[in-house]
Amino acid sequence: MKIRLYTPGPTPVPPDVLLEMAKPITHHRLPVFEKSFANVNKLLKTLFQTQKDVFTLTSSGTGGMEACVANLLRREDRALVVRGGKFGERWGELCEAYGVKFVPIDIEWGKSVDPRQIEDALKVNKGIRAVFTTHSETSTGALNDIRAIGEVVRRYDCLHVVDAITGIGVHDLKIDAWGIDAAVTGSQKGLMIPPGLAFVSLSDRAWEAVGKSDLPKYYFSFEKARKALSKGQNPFTPALTLIMGLEIALKLIEAEGLDNLFKRHARLAEATRIGVRALGLRLLADHPSNVLTAVRVPEGVDGQALVRYLRNDLGILFAGGQDRLKGKIVRISHIGYIDDFDILVAIAGLERGLKQVGHDVKFGTGLAAAQDYLGSN
Amino acid sequence: MKIRLYTPGPTPVPPDVLLEMAKPITHHRLPVFEKSFANVNKLLKTLFQTQKDVFTLTSSGTGGMEACVANLLRREDRALVVRGGKFGERWGELCEAYGVKFVPIDIEWGKSVDPRQIEDALKVNKGIRAVFTTHSETSTGALNDIRAIGEVVRRYDCLHVVDAITGIGVHDLKIDAWGIDAAVTGSQKGLMIPPGLAFVSLSDRAWEAVGKSDLPKYYFSFEKARKALSKGQNPFTPALTLIMGLEIALKLIEAEGLDNLFKRHARLAEATRIGVRALGLRLLADHPSNVLTAVRVPEGVDGQALVRYLRNDLGILFAGGQDRLKGKIVRISHIGYIDDFDILVAIAGLERGLKQVGHDVKFGTGLAAAQDYLGSN
Repeated sequence: MKIRLYTPGPTPVPPDVLLEMAKPITHHRLPVFEKSFANVNKLLKTLFQTQKDVFTLTSSGTGGMEACVANLLRREDRALVVRGGKFGERWGELCEAYGVKFVPIDIEWGKSVDPRQIEDALKVNKGIRAVFTTHSETSTGALNDIRAIGEVVRRYDCLHVVDAITGIGVHDLKIDAWGIDAAVTGSQKGLMIPPGLAFVSLSDRAWEAVGKSDLPKYYFSFEKARKALSKGQNPFTPALTLIMGLEIALKLIEAEGLDNLFKRHARLAEATRIGVRALGLRLLADHPSNVLTAVRVPEGVDGQALVRYLRNDLGILFAGGQDRLKGKIVRISHIGYIDDFDILVAIAGLERGLKQVGHDVKFGTGLAAAQDYLGSN
Repeated sequence: MKIRLYTPGPTPVPPDVLLEMAKPITHHRLPVFEKSFANVNKLLKTLFQTQKDVFTLTSSGTGGMEACVANLLRREDRALVVRGGKFGERWGELCEAYGVKFVPIDIEWGKSVDPRQIEDALKVNKGIRAVFTTHSETSTGALNDIRAIGEVVRRYDCLHVVDAITGIGVHDLKIDAWGIDAAVTGSQKGLMIPPGLAFVSLSDRAWEAVGKSDLPKYYFSFEKARKALSKGQNPFTPALTLIMGLEIALKLIEAEGLDNLFKRHARLAEATRIGVRALGLRLLADHPSNVLTAVRVPEGVDGQALVRYLRNDLGILFAGGQDRLKGKIVRISHIGYIDDFDILVAIAGLERGLKQVGHDVKFGTGLAAAQDYLGSN
């Protein structure tokens, strides 16, 4: 059975990346690696739209998030955490793990935060040192307006730290122009390589905070990462086959160009939404992200059974709902190495799955709508 | 130019492992991955000679070491750290990063710790909660007697935590039988896969300590790892291509058998030592490890120039000396996917390199001695 991934990580890996990683292993002190890593660092800056260094960590994206908390805060600092889903909640859990007190802004899952809520919270709670937000909340498919949030945060003496794990390479995110102090992403999303790497950008303001931080860290120390990067290296042996593959993936992104990359994702996401709506289904998110489309499962349909059938019988991997959304949504990701015809397959699978679990579907309805959009735009 | 790795990580990766990792990426919730991961977990237990679970972390080996400090200690605990090289020192640096006070036992680089030194330190310093040791100290090539150290540590109410990053899969290390409370290894050593994973075994006593620990952790939390493993999963998206490759590597180890594995490494290490000595060179370590052979560079020879020539002109990668040993030793690793003829190439390279940097060498002297040993044993 062919396996097709529409999961929010891992995402499909281009064959050229897979083949690069299958080459005899190299060593991180050899020129062949050092040259690739230098190129990776240059191309990551382009992707992050920053002049500053982007740091590569051997960990999942969560490791990158933890690094931000452990390196940017002091024990007595207070933070503001936007929690609109599982990944927003993770920022709160990380603060808790380090004993950092935080003010939560809890958003109904599926909604995006209103920047005025952040402004209100910053006004009322004096001395907040960092605002933790989520670019594209993967558990709900909701997109947050990072630019507008940034304009608010900039008016306070406060860092803006963004979980952009699934958003970077999909939605425009101008790290420098929008004053984002730290942004995190992971390898198995828009970057199209297997899981195992996280990436973090840091502003000058963030570096000032690093100098003052008193929370414990070693493996995730930004100071160690900076010292190593100044010599073109990593502080600890990196997942170097992934970095070699990453260079190939970043070259593909460079060849496509950021504008085209964002347009392609917007187009594929819109086609997905059109197909889904044509089937009479509703989206969970009010402001849906182009990363993934979270579809409300119709009344009476078991979302978990739907996801299971697609996976086990058709080889099509959607994600189900997590925590409070379990069984209530299916999430169709369209990140990275995905094209028009992959979207048609996803909609075709959704039609087949819905019928299988007892929902009334006229085959081809969603498919025709998506095809019409894709063929005409 | 052909590249040949005799570095203490990365080590050569078998082609079947590389090809496994080049397959279209799978998803960590698919049966194909879950089955592999279950098999990996079973085979890791065999390798670690333990009945307990061995946990897989997506990080370098240092991440696994940090996890031990952060999960096993309380802030007010005191530790004992054996520092006989760069990696012993790392245990101390990790304790410092977490504000844990420790008593160091400093050993001359190249020497092994005498278990009586540990006994003396435990007698004098009451209330030591954990002893941190290094199985094979990669910066010096010295082997420590973990079994004998364990017999001492067992007499105190104290955990024995072992950096076995390069030793596991090379030297016999009986985690359960020798009462080792935590042992760490990394993927790019005896396990023959690329860097990106760390592995940690934990005893029941270690788990008791985990329950009492108050140091901050999230990504490296053993509690989270245990909860996920009870469902056959990882707490965060793992470096799954590496895990798929690991299954192949562990099957190779299983097919060879642990006894044969240790014998092969002992034989290859002995051949290396014989070849080196036949060239009139001396080893750094009194009790040399079978992981790598640290060779003292003869008077008047620039060790860094030797390593550079071998790397740049012959494609043979030895490691040089680190920190205080810079330029004074070369380190020839013989870990993992290495056979008789690889050792001959290493000795041949050493002869060529020595001649190149001005040392008097009769070509074939070391080579003949190594060949004689390998051909006769």
